Amino acid sequence: MTQIHPDQPAARPVIRLARGRSKRLRAGHPWVFSNEIEMDAAAKALPPGGLATLMDAGDERLGVATFNPHSLIAARLLSRRAADTVDAAFLAERLRAALALRDTLFATPHYRLVHSEADRLPGLIVDRYGDVLAVQTNTAGMERLLPDLLEALQTVLAPRAVVLVNDSPVRKLEGLDQHHRVALGQLDGPVELVENGSRFVADLTGGQKTGWFFDQRDNRAFIAGLARGRRVLDVYTYAGGFAVQAAMAGAVETVAVDRSEHSLALADRAAQLNGVAVRTVRAEAFAEMERLALAGERFGVVVADPPAFVKSRKDLGAGAKGYRKMARLAAALVEPGGFLLCASCSHHMPAETFAEEIGHGLHLAGRSGRILRSAGAASDHPVHPWLPESAYLKAQVFQLD
Amino acid sequence: MTQIHPDQPAARPVIRLARGRSKRLRAGHPWVFSNEIEMDAAAKALPPGGLATLMDAGDERLGVATFNPHSLIAARLLSRRAADTVDAAFLAERLRAALALRDTLFATPHYRLVHSEADRLPGLIVDRYGDVLAVQTNTAGMERLLPDLLEALQTVLAPRAVVLVNDSPVRKLEGLDQHHRVALGQLDGPVELVENGSRFVADLTGGQKTGWFFDQRDNRAFIAGLARGRRVLDVYTYAGGFAVQAAMAGAVETVAVDRSEHSLALADRAAQLNGVAVRTVRAEAFAEMERLALAGERFGVVVADPPAFVKSRKDLGAGAKGYRKMARLAAALVEPGGFLLCASCSHHMPAETFAEEIGHGLHLAGRSGRILRSAGAASDHPVHPWLPESAYLKAQVFQLD
Repeated sequence: MTQIHPDQPAARPVIRLARGRSKRLRAGHPWVFSNEIEMDAAAKALPPGGLATLMDAGDERLGVATFNPHSLIAARLLSRRAADTVDAAFLAERLRAALALRDTLFATPHYRLVHSEADRLPGLIVDRYGDVLAVQTNTAGMERLLPDLLEALQTVLAPRAVVLVNDSPVRKLEGLDQHHRVALGQLDGPVELVENGSRFVADLTGGQKTGWFFDQRDNRAFIAGLARGRRVLDVYTYAGGFAVQAAMAGAVETVAVDRSEHSLALADRAAQLNGVAVRTVRAEAFAEMERLALAGERFGVVVADPPAFVKSRKDLGAGAKGYRKMARLAAALVEPGGFLLCASCSHHMPAETFAEEIGHGLHLAGRSGRILRSAGAASDHPVHPWLPESAYLKAQVFQLD
Repeated sequence: MTQIHPDQPAARPVIRLARGRSKRLRAGHPWVFSNEIEMDAAAKALPPGGLATLMDAGDERLGVATFNPHSLIAARLLSRRAADTVDAAFLAERLRAALALRDTLFATPHYRLVHSEADRLPGLIVDRYGDVLAVQTNTAGMERLLPDLLEALQTVLAPRAVVLVNDSPVRKLEGLDQHHRVALGQLDGPVELVENGSRFVADLTGGQKTGWFFDQRDNRAFIAGLARGRRVLDVYTYAGGFAVQAAMAGAVETVAVDRSEHSLALADRAAQLNGVAVRTVRAEAFAEMERLALAGERFGVVVADPPAFVKSRKDLGAGAKGYRKMARLAAALVEPGGFLLCASCSHHMPAETFAEEIGHGLHLAGRSGRILRSAGAASDHPVHPWLPESAYLKAQVFQLD
C-alpha cells in the first residue's frame, strides 16, 4: 500500500462529476456513486482510496474526498473545502469535535467516539474504552489514512493501546482483508468499561466480535428500569449487557443465555465485578426458549437482542422469518403484564418490516400488548441527515397482556 | 344521550362483519371499518357509540365493541370476549392495568395514564396530575361510557377532581361537541406537576390547551443534558417545559418565547417554583427567530416544538413548508457545535416527510450536522402494534457544525 504523503491539495488528482450530477452532493450528501463520475482511464487507474479533488462539469471545486474506482460508492467526501490538506492535523481536528460531543453527552469515557460519515470521517469507526481504542477502517480511503489517523489519535487522546478490529464484511467491497491487530501500544487482556453505572469487560483481541455494543446503552437502561422485582431472561446475552444491568436494578432472578462459552465468561466476570447474581446458560437461543416454554417457565422481562439475522439483501426473507420466530418464542415466555424487548442490528432489515415481523410473531404466540419504546442506537451513534438508511439498529419494547 | 345501562352481553345488538372481513380483527387490529360491516337498516339505526357484539359471517362471536354507524371507524373493540360485561368494574380493571404500568415506569404520579387503544380503552385519554385527572373522550362510544368511567376512576384513584378537556377536533367526526368542564370534585386553579425533577403548573380549565404535554418528557431530559453552560432558546415554550428544565440543568441563559401571555405566565411560575431564571418573551416564533438572527444572536441550544402545523391531510403541503421554514430559521440561530431540536406533533405528517423537510431547512440555512436522536412520545404514550400511524410525535435533535 503506497501512501501518497503528504497530501498536497494543488497536486491531487481531480475527479470530475458528470454534468448535472453534483446536485445531491451540493445539497449535503457525502457520497458520489461511480455512475455519476466521468470515469476515464486516468480515474480508473487511480489507487483505491487515494485522495482526490472533486470538481463539477463547470470546473467548480466541490471538495476533497477519498476515491475508490472499484467501489459503487466511488467518492466519500472529507471536506467541502478542496484547499484543506488532509493530514494528521486535519484528522485530529475532526477527532476533537467528535470528542467534544461525547464529553457533552457522557460522564464516563466509554462510548463510540467516531461513527463514520455522521462524524465527518467516512469509513471510520472508533470505540473508546477509556485509554484503549478499538478502530475499524471500513473503506480503502480510511485504510490509506491509517498512519495519519494513528498520529491524530495519539495527539488527541494519547491512548495506551489502539486495536484494529477490522473484521467487518464491508471491507471486502473495498478490496480490503480482515484482521485483528494491536496497532499502537500494548494490550494484554480484556478491557473494562462502565455503562449506566455497571461495570463490564470487553475482549478486543480474543473475542469473536468487536468488544462492546455501545449502541444498546439507552435500551439497556430502559429495560433495567422495568426489571425490579421481576425474573429476567436475556437470550443473546453476549458480554452480559442487559442481564447484568437488570440484576443491578433489582431483578429477583436473572438468566443469561449465549451459545458461546467465551461470551458467557465475559458475562460472568461482569456479574462478579458488580456483585450481582446472573445465572449463565450455554445454549442456542431458539432451542433454549422452546425448552423453557415446555418447562412452563415464565419471566417478567425477556430480552432478545440477537446478532444480525440478515447479513445481505438476499437473506431478507429468511432473516425476516427468523425475527418472527424469535418474537413468537420469546413472547411465549413473558408472564401477563410482563415486558419483551426485540431488537435487530441488521442493516438490511427495514424498520417497518422488522415491526411487522415482530407483530406477526406476537400474534402467532397468541399475545397482545403495546409498544412502549421504539428506538435506534444511542446518541454516540449519530446519523448523517442524508444517510437515514445508516440507522441500522431497531429495538422495540412491548408490554404484553 | 340515552344510556343503555347496565350492559347485558346476551341482549346486546349484534354487528355482523361481511364475509372474509374479519381477518384483520382476528390478527389483532382493534377497529372495524364501516365498509367491512353488513350495514343493514337495523345497524344504521343503532345509537352512535352503543355497545355491540361483533360476529363474523359464520356466526362466531369476535368480541364486544363500541359501534358508531356514522363513523368511518365503525366499531372499536373493547374486549375479544363477547361475554364480558362492559361496566364500571370492567373499566376499573383496565384502569388498574394502565396504572400498574405507569407505577413501573415512573416515580411520580404525573403522566398519561390512559392512551386510548394502546391501553385497551379506545377513544379515551386520561392525564394524571397526582389527584387531579384530565379526561378526553374522543369517540361516541367512550362518551356514552362516561358515567361508568367516572365511577371506575373514583374506585381506582379516588381523585380530588376530574376535568373533561373535550376540545379535540376528532370529536366532530364522532358527532360530539367540544367543551371543558369539571365532571367530578372541584378544581380552583392550576395544578402542579413534577417532570424530570422540575416543578411545573398546568392549567386544565383556563388554558387554551390541554394542560401539560407529557409526551416530550424524555426529549426534555435529553435537551437538559445538553444545556449546561450554554445559552438556550425555546421558541414555542408553552408552559416552559424545555426552558425550565434546561435552566435547571445549568444553562447560562434561557430565553422562552410564546405568543400567548397566558402560556408565558405558566412558564414564569414554573421558573419561580424551581428558583431559576428564564427570560420570557411574548412574540410569534418565526418573527422572533428572524429578529434574533438579524441581531446576531446565537445559542448553544435551540428548541422548536410547535403546535401542529398540519391539522388535516389537506394542510400537508403548507404544513411541510412550515416545518422547513421553522428548521431554517432555528438553524440560523445555533452556534457552531450547538444543538437543535425540531418536533412535530402533527398526526398527518409522516416521519420521513418531516425528516426531509427539516433536512431541507438545515440545507437552506447552510448548515450541516448530525442527528443525535430521533424519538417519538415517551413510554406513557404506548402505541398499539396494529396502529403504528398513531405514533404522532416526531422529534429530531441535531448537532450542527
